[in-house]
Amino acid sequence: MKTIGIVGLGVMGASFAKRLSQKGYAVYGFEVSQKVLDLALAKQIITKGTTEPRELLWECDEIILALYPTQILPWVKENQKYFRPQTLLMDISGVKSNIILPVQEILRNDVELISIHPMCGRESRGIEFSDETIFDGANYIVVPTSRNSKEAIQTARELGSVLGVKRINELSIEEHDRMIGFLSQLTHVIAVSLMNTHENSHLVEYTGDSFRDLTRIASINEDLWSELFVLNKDILLEEIDQFMEAVSHFKTALKQEDTEEMKRLFIQSTQRRERFNQ
Amino acid sequence: MKTIGIVGLGVMGASFAKRLSQKGYAVYGFEVSQKVLDLALAKQIITKGTTEPRELLWECDEIILALYPTQILPWVKENQKYFRPQTLLMDISGVKSNIILPVQEILRNDVELISIHPMCGRESRGIEFSDETIFDGANYIVVPTSRNSKEAIQTARELGSVLGVKRINELSIEEHDRMIGFLSQLTHVIAVSLMNTHENSHLVEYTGDSFRDLTRIASINEDLWSELFVLNKDILLEEIDQFMEAVSHFKTALKQEDTEEMKRLFIQSTQRRERFNQ
Repeated sequence: MKTIGIVGLGVMGASFAKRLSQKGYAVYGFEVSQKVLDLALAKQIITKGTTEPRELLWECDEIILALYPTQILPWVKENQKYFRPQTLLMDISGVKSNIILPVQEILRNDVELISIHPMCGRESRGIEFSDETIFDGANYIVVPTSRNSKEAIQTARELGSVLGVKRINELSIEEHDRMIGFLSQLTHVIAVSLMNTHENSHLVEYTGDSFRDLTRIASINEDLWSELFVLNKDILLEEIDQFMEAVSHFKTALKQEDTEEMKRLFIQSTQRRERFNQ
Repeated sequence: MKTIGIVGLGVMGASFAKRLSQKGYAVYGFEVSQKVLDLALAKQIITKGTTEPRELLWECDEIILALYPTQILPWVKENQKYFRPQTLLMDISGVKSNIILPVQEILRNDVELISIHPMCGRESRGIEFSDETIFDGANYIVVPTSRNSKEAIQTARELGSVLGVKRINELSIEEHDRMIGFLSQLTHVIAVSLMNTHENSHLVEYTGDSFRDLTRIASINEDLWSELFVLNKDILLEEIDQFMEAVSHFKTALKQEDTEEMKRLFIQSTQRRERFNQ
C-alpha cells in the first residue's frame, strides 16, 4: 500500500486522513500544531505525524495539500527539497485560478502537482469536525493542466474512487472556476448579503423554510472564503453583475406592474429549476 | 358544531376543508368547478358543496375565503346579499395591503371580515395537492384592523388552534406585509433571479446543496405570486433596493480586495444567522 502524506489536519485534511486510514493506507500527518497531531494519533486518524516536514516527507508516495489556498505556494517552496523523487502532490483548493499554475511553475522537475476538488467542504473548522462520510455522495473534480501526465490524472481519479465519492469529472481551471463562481461563490454572496440586508432578529419567530434555506450558507468561515473570493475575483465579479442585472430586471417589471413579464420570469425559473430536482 | 363555508377548493381551501372535516365541523364547499366539488364530496373533504353560493351561504356561521387575493372583493360584492347576519368572514391572503380595507369598506354592517394568514402555502395548485398536515408546525398570523371586534379576533385565534398550528401571533397590516416582504417575497425574487441569471443546465451535475437550497422556491405559481407582488409593491421594492445595496457593498469590497471588510460582512452574517438556528 502507498504512504500518503496529508499537509494540514483541519476539517478537510483530517477527513481525508480518516477515510484513507480506514482503507488501510499508511497516512502521515503534517501539522504546525503538536496538539492536533497528538489528537490525530490518539484517535488513529494518522499512522505517524510531525511538525517537521523534513522528517517524514521523503517517505510519502503521494501528498495531499489541505492548506488554505494562499499557504500552498510558500509551503511547497520551503519544503520541496524534502520530497522523494516522483512524489505526486494533490491540492484540494476550492478555486484553482492563481493557485495551481504558480506552484507548477516553481515545482521540481521530478515531482508533479495535480489539482483535485472534492466538493464536500464544511463551514466548521478543525480536526474535531472531521468526518469521513463527507465524501459519500460528493462530486469530485480533477483539474488537469497542460503540465500534467496521464498517469497523474489517473492516480487522482483513483483517489476519488478510494474516497468513495459519487461522481468523478475532469474540468479545466477556467471551467472549474466558472462553475464554482456561479454555483458556490455567488450563492454565498447572496446568502451573506440577504442576511446583511438589514437588522432582522425580530423576524426569527416568523421565519419559515424559505428564509432558512436561503441563508443556511450565510454562516461562513471568513478567513477561507475571503481568500477564495479574491483568488477568483474576476469571474465572481462577472457573476455578481449578471445576478444583479437579473434582480434589476425583475424590479423594473414589478415597478411597472408588468405582470406578463413577471409571469414569464417565474415560468422560466420554474422550468429551469425542474432540471435540478433529482 | 359550527358550519364553516370554504370559498375556493384549491390547494389551500381543500387543506382547510380536510382538517376542519376531520375535527367534526360541517364544511360547505363553494367552487366554480363542479368536477372539483364532486371530488371533494367523494373524498369526504366537504359535507356539502355547490357552484351556486346563494344555495348554501346562508347556512354558514363562518366563511373562509381561499380565493386569489384580487378575486376577494368582487366575490364579496356579488355574494354578500346571501350571508346570514353575524357571519364571520376570514381571508387567508398572503399579503394584506390593498385587500382587507377595501373589502371591510363595502361589507354589510351586520357581518365582519377578519384577516388571517396561516404561513404554510404550497407552490402546487389544486385540490389534489391539498394536505391537512401543512398546518402542523405552521405560524399563523391574525391581522386585525380598527374595524374588527374582540370577538372576531378571538374566533380567528381559535380557528388557528383547531387547525393545529404551532404559533399564533397578531400583527397589523403594515407589520405583516413588511415581514412577508422580507422573509417571503424578497427571498422569492432572489431565488427566481438567481435561476434566471444565465443558462445553467450544464451545471446540473455539479450542483450541491447550496444551490439547491437557494433555488428551491424558484418553482413558483406565477399567477398567484405576480398578484401578491403587485399588491405589496411599495414594500417589496424597498426590500429589493436594500438587498441590492448589500450585494453592491459586498461587490465593492471584493473589487478593492478589501479582505477586512469582506471578513466583517461574513462575521456579521454568521452571527445573525445563528439566531435562526433552532
